[in-house]
Amino acid sequence: MAQRIADLQDVTFALYDQMQVEALLRHERYQDLNRKTMDLILREARHFGTKEVLPTRAQGEVEGLRFDGGEVRVPACYRRVHRLLLAAELTSPTEDPAVGGQGLPHLLARAAGEYLTGANWSLVAYAVTGHGTGKMIELYGSVAQKALFLKKLYTGTWAGTMVLTEPSAGSDVGAITTTARDNGDGSYLIRGDKIFITNGEHDLSENIIHPVLARIEGDPMGTKGISIFIVPKFWVGPDGSMGDHNDVVCTGVEKKMGIKGSATCTMSFGAQGRCRGLLLGRPRQGMEIMFHMMNEARLDVGFMGLCHASAAYLHAIDYARQRIQGRELGSASRDSVPIIRHPDVRRMLLWMKAHVDGMRSLVYYVSRCQDEAALTDVEVAVSGHNDRIALLTPVVKAYCAQRGFEVCSMAMQVYGGSGYIRDYPVEQLTRDCRIASIFEGTDGIQAMDLLGRKLGMDGGRVFIQLLAEIQATVQAARAHADLAALADALEAAVRHLATTAQALGERARSAEVKSAFAHAHPFLISFGDVIMAWMLLWRANTATPLLEKRLAKVAPEARAQKINTDKKAAFYEGQRQTACFFIQNVLPETRGRMRSIQAGDAAALKISEAGFGGL
Amino acid sequence: MAQRIADLQDVTFALYDQMQVEALLRHERYQDLNRKTMDLILREARHFGTKEVLPTRAQGEVEGLRFDGGEVRVPACYRRVHRLLLAAELTSPTEDPAVGGQGLPHLLARAAGEYLTGANWSLVAYAVTGHGTGKMIELYGSVAQKALFLKKLYTGTWAGTMVLTEPSAGSDVGAITTTARDNGDGSYLIRGDKIFITNGEHDLSENIIHPVLARIEGDPMGTKGISIFIVPKFWVGPDGSMGDHNDVVCTGVEKKMGIKGSATCTMSFGAQGRCRGLLLGRPRQGMEIMFHMMNEARLDVGFMGLCHASAAYLHAIDYARQRIQGRELGSASRDSVPIIRHPDVRRMLLWMKAHVDGMRSLVYYVSRCQDEAALTDVEVAVSGHNDRIALLTPVVKAYCAQRGFEVCSMAMQVYGGSGYIRDYPVEQLTRDCRIASIFEGTDGIQAMDLLGRKLGMDGGRVFIQLLAEIQATVQAARAHADLAALADALEAAVRHLATTAQALGERARSAEVKSAFAHAHPFLISFGDVIMAWMLLWRANTATPLLEKRLAKVAPEARAQKINTDKKAAFYEGQRQTACFFIQNVLPETRGRMRSIQAGDAAALKISEAGFGGL
Repeated sequence: MAQRIADLQDVTFALYDQMQVEALLRHERYQDLNRKTMDLILREARHFGTKEVLPTRAQGEVEGLRFDGGEVRVPACYRRVHRLLLAAELTSPTEDPAVGGQGLPHLLARAAGEYLTGANWSLVAYAVTGHGTGKMIELYGSVAQKALFLKKLYTGTWAGTMVLTEPSAGSDVGAITTTARDNGDGSYLIRGDKIFITNGEHDLSENIIHPVLARIEGDPMGTKGISIFIVPKFWVGPDGSMGDHNDVVCTGVEKKMGIKGSATCTMSFGAQGRCRGLLLGRPRQGMEIMFHMMNEARLDVGFMGLCHASAAYLHAIDYARQRIQGRELGSASRDSVPIIRHPDVRRMLLWMKAHVDGMRSLVYYVSRCQDEAALTDVEVAVSGHNDRIALLTPVVKAYCAQRGFEVCSMAMQVYGGSGYIRDYPVEQLTRDCRIASIFEGTDGIQAMDLLGRKLGMDGGRVFIQLLAEIQATVQAARAHADLAALADALEAAVRHLATTAQALGERARSAEVKSAFAHAHPFLISFGDVIMAWMLLWRANTATPLLEKRLAKVAPEARAQKINTDKKAAFYEGQRQTACFFIQNVLPETRGRMRSIQAGDAAALKISEAGFGGL
Repeated sequence: MAQRIADLQDVTFALYDQMQVEALLRHERYQDLNRKTMDLILREARHFGTKEVLPTRAQGEVEGLRFDGGEVRVPACYRRVHRLLLAAELTSPTEDPAVGGQGLPHLLARAAGEYLTGANWSLVAYAVTGHGTGKMIELYGSVAQKALFLKKLYTGTWAGTMVLTEPSAGSDVGAITTTARDNGDGSYLIRGDKIFITNGEHDLSENIIHPVLARIEGDPMGTKGISIFIVPKFWVGPDGSMGDHNDVVCTGVEKKMGIKGSATCTMSFGAQGRCRGLLLGRPRQGMEIMFHMMNEARLDVGFMGLCHASAAYLHAIDYARQRIQGRELGSASRDSVPIIRHPDVRRMLLWMKAHVDGMRSLVYYVSRCQDEAALTDVEVAVSGHNDRIALLTPVVKAYCAQRGFEVCSMAMQVYGGSGYIRDYPVEQLTRDCRIASIFEGTDGIQAMDLLGRKLGMDGGRVFIQLLAEIQATVQAARAHADLAALADALEAAVRHLATTAQALGERARSAEVKSAFAHAHPFLISFGDVIMAWMLLWRANTATPLLEKRLAKVAPEARAQKINTDKKAAFYEGQRQTACFFIQNVLPETRGRMRSIQAGDAAALKISEAGFGGL
């Protein structure tokens, strides 16, 4: 089985042909990179992911976590591979080599990263979460804080976390009750209990640096009064030496549906009255700072959805090619055939492929925006890229989480009975992927972010400019006669999306605000669908001349045969069929959903609380 | 928490008000039943399910199955409750008391059965599967076979199974290789290996009676050559005494995503050359006979989807009422509120409720058809009812399985982070429910059955007559001014469904047959959606006069208040809002999907096998 994590042919197509990563290399920052070195990086990531990381996915679940006396032992098979991840400098690939990075473009790092996250998110997260913690310190920390923590975190030597949630403060972060008191020596005394802390405690790293949200005594309630503190598991002296255990205790590890190798911890800070933290940034700047990490984490969660979907799809397609069952419909032969010949199996496979391809392109597109923002010196261009990333972040997070899970579940369906049993990998992928719709802000929270904050950015111009970019792809498709009908369908859907967004936005600013937000999630999904159609038509545009080139010397009557036998020709033609499938089969449902959003039914608000029943 | 399995108010509404179960009681067979006795049966089932069965759901998963030396030990907590299920005569409620039943209408038995299946399917299946095995023997067995097996199976004293699947014969049953050789003494020698046999071996019953599909040596390949045999785990003598172990061996138990208390067995029949079976019916009549059990099992699987969805919904609504988090949108108050106040949570809850209510009504409707078929002596009426059941069976199975799972997964979403952890029941419900789309014929197989066999029954008249019955509900809704718009929308959807079915049926009979079947599953789901809308509008029709009666003496300006405070008024008004929600929010998506089916895009067939990638 050649491909089990991410289809290399598709990864390289999206990277080089669609997203044109080589255009980034004109910048002096990337003077050491070229197609050859990038290919090498991809192949090494793929080799490492497949050979080292992948075996830990199922094995780590079998071994499980051990929790005893406040200590968490990760699955034994994680230990060596975690060391290798650090040794290979895979923890912060986009950062400067001076602080432990590899200086790679985000776009390339994402592509390579598919082979890590897609192999075993639970393991990889232990190694890479320190990057997010480090990023906050890079952006907001003092010179001393950067000197103490940055490189250790970027290299994964010390692990990081995100410490927000409390039993009564989940989606409503502003409700946290954890407190901080100024010790007068540059440190604060932290006291509070936290839950759902990913990798809050484990034995893979010599130290764990917790960025903890807390309220300085006397500061106002709500999000505005929240500050953020650097709370190391082991105190770090001014010279970087590790000191005493800092009264940070893991009090429990959750038993979960999936990601069972990842320690989801209940944490107690300062139960003995001696937990110290360093203020990061200014007092009450906590939410602003944490959102830097949160936004990175939300993109990572959408990426997690893509990676699980990609792996599940590849397993399903492989199974569908191998599994012999049933006769071919409409065929005179009595022989049993591989199930990939059955129309309903092909429908499932192409639905999965369309979403995996589209999500990959969306994720890469956002990574390219990150690169473009980093490479330009023109301030207005930087903010344009950043605004676009901000607009797309909730879509990447929630759409890829939801569709990723649906792809995994559909992969189980392709397997039939075997899909439900542990001997095959898709049931674990499905369970593991399910968390993506929940953590780092549920999909519902993302939908509120999209409607409440992002759609109206810059008076709606950020959204409108994105639609204009989609329209450019539509126009480009019209150059290819056989894509014109798809271009028309996407154009109509984009217009429909625009009028739907306008109607919904107006309602959100009216007395019917609640009714508007009852349609926020269907709107996010519809937006995501239109983006998928865009990405797939863009892919079809990209593939068409490549296919023509491939078929240039083939006689017209031999072209179908060539497409069936030539892997590259089949791939390019597959891009066109995938766009066709999505636009003709999925987008009509999206249109129907947008009609219902525009109609704005308010039954979900009108029904009385008792009317929901269950009393 | 009052309701954890099925909402009693909704169950009684669907049973008495919508489905008019009392109309069945006119038949002399039910002279001992009246509203009071039926209420008693429901309340006892609810009490038993909640008190005895429900605690085994999570506990059984913790204890798990033990497999050792061919023997399967069920979770210890199952044992006592299994005995109680048998003692309470809950295994074959619709059968004649003379053979171990309770002589209840199917409709009432379904309603009561929600409290068993919804409490722990894995446990209940051990007790009730004997019924399906018994039914085949009742219909096709010899006098001697009935005397030996019927009552033992109907009472659950002996357990039953369904033994079809082999490693190379899953969806394609005709490919089985298990053989039977006539011993010349009325018995056959059986040899073959089977997989995925639910409860193929366990220690709850003194004997297990396996109905085994096998091919008598010399009989033709394919389904036409298949016979069915009664293969007891312990041989049963002519006097009913149990003899030797019959060379039926469990060789393994699958590790699964869910239903972990249910033993999914790999079975070897006749490995030692001494497995004996009794022919049931005639040679080569196996598929016809097995389909009696299979159809019952398919309806049961759809029911399983409903039951899991119902339980998950009730947990979610309870959590949404209890969980305080976030401020109310558009409210001046700074207080945190129960999350049921948040629009996105209400959207999820009402989506879940609409599907749970609609699936309940659909399942009950089919049960009523079974009763009507059993109670009439007019042959044409019997076949009319049976045809309708046959038409709806694949929809009940696949639609309720899929939507049931989606409801469970959405319940996790309402819980947020807590939904993903084992401390709360919805993650188990989600895992347990996922099997429903797979076993007893995958949803894809159901879709093929619907398009290939059922839509065209009696020249399409069975389908058309069902649409006419939906139309009658549409007409009835027009009598209520505020339901008229919903009636119009449903009428348009029904017409759309009819034209879609016609277009798809014609394509299925043309050279484009494969393309037609690539749309079979979306068609099944669309059909199911229209049926949901029908059932919900029917409920709204039923609830409207009851609400008017409830509000008769309430001044117009006080009605809203009454609906908020009076549980019954809230329930009836809730029915109307639920219909409105589904028809205005879900049906537009369905319409879009039907457009795509009509358009009949064939990309899933046109794409080359290599074009799917992964190579």
